[in-house]
Amino acid sequence: MEKRIAVLPGDGIGKEVVKGAIEVLQAVGERFGHQFHFEYGKIGGEAIDTVGTPLPDETVELCKQSDAVLLGAVGGPKWESQPVHLRPERGLLKIRKELNLYANLRPTTYFQSLADSSPLRKEVIENVDMLMVRELTGGLYFGKPSERIQQNGRDAVVDTLFYQRNEMERVIKLAFELAKSRTGKVTSVDKANVLESSRMWREVAEEIAKDYPEVELEHMLVDNAAMQLVRKPTQFDVIVTENLFGDILSDEASVLTGSLGMLPSASLSEAGPYLYEPIHGSAPDIEGRNLANPLATILSAAMMLRLSFNMNEEAEAIEQAVSQVLEAGYRTGDIMAFGKHQVSTTEMVEQVKATL
Amino acid sequence: MEKRIAVLPGDGIGKEVVKGAIEVLQAVGERFGHQFHFEYGKIGGEAIDTVGTPLPDETVELCKQSDAVLLGAVGGPKWESQPVHLRPERGLLKIRKELNLYANLRPTTYFQSLADSSPLRKEVIENVDMLMVRELTGGLYFGKPSERIQQNGRDAVVDTLFYQRNEMERVIKLAFELAKSRTGKVTSVDKANVLESSRMWREVAEEIAKDYPEVELEHMLVDNAAMQLVRKPTQFDVIVTENLFGDILSDEASVLTGSLGMLPSASLSEAGPYLYEPIHGSAPDIEGRNLANPLATILSAAMMLRLSFNMNEEAEAIEQAVSQVLEAGYRTGDIMAFGKHQVSTTEMVEQVKATL
Ligand SMILES: CC(C)[C@H](C(=O)O)[C@@H](O)C(=O)O
Ligand SMILES: CC(C)[C@H](C(=O)O)[C@@H](O)C(=O)O
Repeated sequence: MEKRIAVLPGDGIGKEVVKGAIEVLQAVGERFGHQFHFEYGKIGGEAIDTVGTPLPDETVELCKQSDAVLLGAVGGPKWESQPVHLRPERGLLKIRKELNLYANLRPTTYFQSLADSSPLRKEVIENVDMLMVRELTGGLYFGKPSERIQQNGRDAVVDTLFYQRNEMERVIKLAFELAKSRTGKVTSVDKANVLESSRMWREVAEEIAKDYPEVELEHMLVDNAAMQLVRKPTQFDVIVTENLFGDILSDEASVLTGSLGMLPSASLSEAGPYLYEPIHGSAPDIEGRNLANPLATILSAAMMLRLSFNMNEEAEAIEQAVSQVLEAGYRTGDIMAFGKHQVSTTEMVEQVKATL
Repeated sequence: MEKRIAVLPGDGIGKEVVKGAIEVLQAVGERFGHQFHFEYGKIGGEAIDTVGTPLPDETVELCKQSDAVLLGAVGGPKWESQPVHLRPERGLLKIRKELNLYANLRPTTYFQSLADSSPLRKEVIENVDMLMVRELTGGLYFGKPSERIQQNGRDAVVDTLFYQRNEMERVIKLAFELAKSRTGKVTSVDKANVLESSRMWREVAEEIAKDYPEVELEHMLVDNAAMQLVRKPTQFDVIVTENLFGDILSDEASVLTGSLGMLPSASLSEAGPYLYEPIHGSAPDIEGRNLANPLATILSAAMMLRLSFNMNEEAEAIEQAVSQVLEAGYRTGDIMAFGKHQVSTTEMVEQVKATL
């Protein structure tokens, strides 16, 4: 097969980890007889510095004409005092809207070989295998008004949590579809005891559940979910929730296994292309030092092969190579442990390619 | 001294734990020569069942005429399918508004004797000592509109995150005041990269910080805070945040030490009375079985003595008695561990009284 992949390295370690993932994709292409064409676009701080906007139109066009998008990371202290519309993360928010990436998928899996780097006890974290499905283009992130106002002569401010019913439907439906090929349980997280939007969310979840008799639906309040993720993470299979709750809970979930540098993500739209990126940020403190962990981006590339190109065998080849490299004791600094063998970004990439 | 305390036992185990706390307060009163007058009011499911509303006016009046309020817990499956305005938790939300309880304080402390019941590794949780200050009467909880709407003929829904600047000021100021008598660090949590309200929050925090040169101010995004609480909870001293973020993060924090049944809270207003309650819910599954852990409510009573009545010595006497009872090995079911001595609610209360 032949595929066009838009590559947006972004800022900080984004460039380094994306480079590693591309090498791995090329190696997979050679082994399985596929041709991947990589075309580069600018996003985030780099785009601000060179063309004056965090997401130039050319980048959007490039993505729309590609079969999938691979993103590194954006942001850094350099741009933190910019006005809002010139911040790197605006590029992220805009690309989600432009590509209609309504669902963000984040698997959190347990790597036995990394158990010691989790803040949780081994008994608590062992065998965790959950998939967070976060609504990504609605809610407080995009609702209007979002502005300063005056109320009876006093300074006040308002943000708006807005959802169309069909925006809830498509992401909840996706969660049920994904649950079918897993253990078959969906936990829908909301704050239905306070928010009207959550009450609608709960109704929609109930309705969609009727079409999936083989999937179990459970409702959980967001405050309780934040507790349960730490208390007993193994109770979860698929979690589905709205944008901001998903932002908070998926970051919480990502730290449970102690392997933030290992976790991939995929953002899906109705018509494609999908976007893939590691969960971690741009880590400006270690930028350019060949220290970053490339595995989250490499595993994001594996998700791309599976979800965008239907290349299951190829995706598994990458995932197995990553597991084997870890079992063989190779570690970047972030997951280094006593008695293991510390390697650089490029050495880690070489190990994965060699194992493929 | 003579003090009037409004007592709202509420539902489920609320009655049992409140009864225990009252006995302890009476014992303290005898020992230190104070008179506490307890007057009872209805709230939550009990109020719905008997007078048809989750917070009757008489209860509000009673509270307003008292020096402090002691609350048990509200809610249960019995009322879950009621229309929104007849749910027990409406009583909670309403009493917060009626008494102007703008700040909810939740200390999370490490009990060495309970270390084994934490889901976190001992090294991670050891010596945690943080105070969450949550804004309690603003934000998405009370903003209008909060309703179903039609948009271009489609079903949609809106909730509103609304804050007046002075609502931010008073709670952030309180956090700085509280930090002065602790290690002197305030972490202000927001989502300033997305929400306009958070950008105002950050500005207000910066401004107030100027009046407290001895206190260090740090800003943290809410998604990162959800991670850091699990990754390294000892980095926090005072955390201050808006209502919904506080709801989520304080529940997450409460599970870290593995002692949810141990954690007290206080809700403060500008003019008093303040309200005290355990963090845990009404636990209908163990209602009436003399199994509930009364210590969170007993420790809430200690907070009352300190914050409402300025009785520091008396508060410490309770806190020390609780520690000693735990060290002596007494445990209710929720914190039971191998080799310890399991006791009922009433036995635990007796132990605390005997130790006082
Ligand atoms: C950078 C920020 C706007 C973004 C978000 O809140 O969605 C990030 O936290 C994420 O989760 O991708
Ligand atoms: C019951 C509910 C409305 C309440 C809240 O969200 O404030 C509870 O979760 C709490 O934290 O006291």
